[in-house]
Amino acid sequence: MKCSKCDNKAIIKIPYSNLALCKDHFIEWFEKRFERIVDKYKMFENSKKIAVAVSGGKDSTTLLHLMKKLSEKKGFEIIGINIDLGIDMGKQYSSKSTEFALKNFEMLGVKYRIVRIKERYGFTIDDAKHKIKRPVCSTCGLVKRYTLTEVAEEEGADTIVTGHNLNDMAQFIMAGYFNGDVRDLARLDIITPPEKGYRVMKVKPLFLIYEKEILTYALVKGIPFLYDSCPHTFRVGGVTQDTIRRKLEELEETIPGYMLMLVENFINKIQPALKEKYIKEEELGHCKICGRPTTKDREICSFCAVRLKMTGQTVNIK
Amino acid sequence: MKCSKCDNKAIIKIPYSNLALCKDHFIEWFEKRFERIVDKYKMFENSKKIAVAVSGGKDSTTLLHLMKKLSEKKGFEIIGINIDLGIDMGKQYSSKSTEFALKNFEMLGVKYRIVRIKERYGFTIDDAKHKIKRPVCSTCGLVKRYTLTEVAEEEGADTIVTGHNLNDMAQFIMAGYFNGDVRDLARLDIITPPEKGYRVMKVKPLFLIYEKEILTYALVKGIPFLYDSCPHTFRVGGVTQDTIRRKLEELEETIPGYMLMLVENFINKIQPALKEKYIKEEELGHCKICGRPTTKDREICSFCAVRLKMTGQTVNIK
Repeated sequence: MKCSKCDNKAIIKIPYSNLALCKDHFIEWFEKRFERIVDKYKMFENSKKIAVAVSGGKDSTTLLHLMKKLSEKKGFEIIGINIDLGIDMGKQYSSKSTEFALKNFEMLGVKYRIVRIKERYGFTIDDAKHKIKRPVCSTCGLVKRYTLTEVAEEEGADTIVTGHNLNDMAQFIMAGYFNGDVRDLARLDIITPPEKGYRVMKVKPLFLIYEKEILTYALVKGIPFLYDSCPHTFRVGGVTQDTIRRKLEELEETIPGYMLMLVENFINKIQPALKEKYIKEEELGHCKICGRPTTKDREICSFCAVRLKMTGQTVNIK
Repeated sequence: MKCSKCDNKAIIKIPYSNLALCKDHFIEWFEKRFERIVDKYKMFENSKKIAVAVSGGKDSTTLLHLMKKLSEKKGFEIIGINIDLGIDMGKQYSSKSTEFALKNFEMLGVKYRIVRIKERYGFTIDDAKHKIKRPVCSTCGLVKRYTLTEVAEEEGADTIVTGHNLNDMAQFIMAGYFNGDVRDLARLDIITPPEKGYRVMKVKPLFLIYEKEILTYALVKGIPFLYDSCPHTFRVGGVTQDTIRRKLEELEETIPGYMLMLVENFINKIQPALKEKYIKEEELGHCKICGRPTTKDREICSFCAVRLKMTGQTVNIK
């Protein structure tokens, strides 16, 4: 198979664009595609300092490399944030993750913070697994979001970017169409504005990029990343989420561009209708422990509830 | 495998309800389920005379049998309508369809009309295939909708029911999520109110019933129906529609109830939001040839445009 743009051997097919590309032309095409998406969705128009959440996997390390390049072009600042969640399960998952994040921070010479939640909050995700009633992946998501936001604010960032890719998005959307959680669907933003009174917005710059393309980019660019999946994976939704993802990937093989169209049509056409119908501007209250925004009628936020249960401590009372 | 309700051998599994049923209990369960859906969605609350569109296939013949039973219970009148579309293609498809429809009308002793579009309008679907630019399945859909509505009105019916099943609905919805035709999705009603100034509404009473269950019911009840598919099948959407349907059926095997939830959540939660955002009450004009409603700025309706092209005649000028 020859590259569509030169005589070299193609290393990847992009069936939905009817392209086959050699290494160099793929890198060029991929980076341009990333920039076009960023521009089309006006992702960083007002961003001055962007925190890049780096877990050490292929998506977030690739995102870090792309954001580094973009920061030089557009003139914003970036800082890498890695959260050591304390997931071990006999596989040193978190310490390996942090190792790979660190390799990339140093390789690119970007400023970074490594945050160990055991030190910062007094418990690990592994500790929480049996002590907290919600599924461990849900606790982990909560802890990551909370920590990222807090640390990004400490660092003076105005934007957080995360590595959710197209396959992730397509899976969330199809699961939402199936289970009917229209409020979750309405809130599945690619650009989440800051909470009232705060200034950090969240962006998913890879939301239209296929997992396969990200993986290929990471490999050909020699980006060091952790192959392992989290040992806790698939505890939320279980078989269902996994099956939906596989079927979407099969659909993609027969109908190239299926996921792309599913996600773009969702973001551009379906979600706006769901937002209008189902999301009312909620009045928020403040958590009595940490002071961050929470549902109006709650005394303390979900994160502080978890932390209190795990440690008996409420160190940060404001 | 034993029936969940008695000691007889089960003939079908209903995995999403965790049931296995023998012939008699399946028939009882199926008919109850049909009635519950009719009641839940208040399908025939104001119906006095219902036209049942019968193509002769498993869905529409089963629907006829169910509607006959329901008419005795609820006290409305029914009339069967079969349209001979003039599809032959060397397989006598339309004449066989009509034969099976007729068998069922006579078997049940229901009043009926058989409408041959060649006699009524001067052309057949086979004729239209090469002469009309739109895909033949699209022309056919247009002709069927037009004819059904006209004939139902002539017969004084206030309601038309059609045999679209759950698998059909799930396929339409997934195709819509993929191709982003939000206005089509918004209009994919299970109960379509009459056009302004008219009185015939359209209902899809089988929209929550799996194809497999309908087929099983038709078989165990000895309902005569035509197995053949239309020789023109899959000319609209082609491979895409077919692939989507197969993937949905595979998803259903791993996640029992997938299609059911996809369709119910669409109808109850997603579609209302799409209607609010995308459908404005359109002012309709009237076709200069047949007088029926059409888009405001058009002189003649799509049906009369096809007919004019096919026959050069405009017999019904009003």
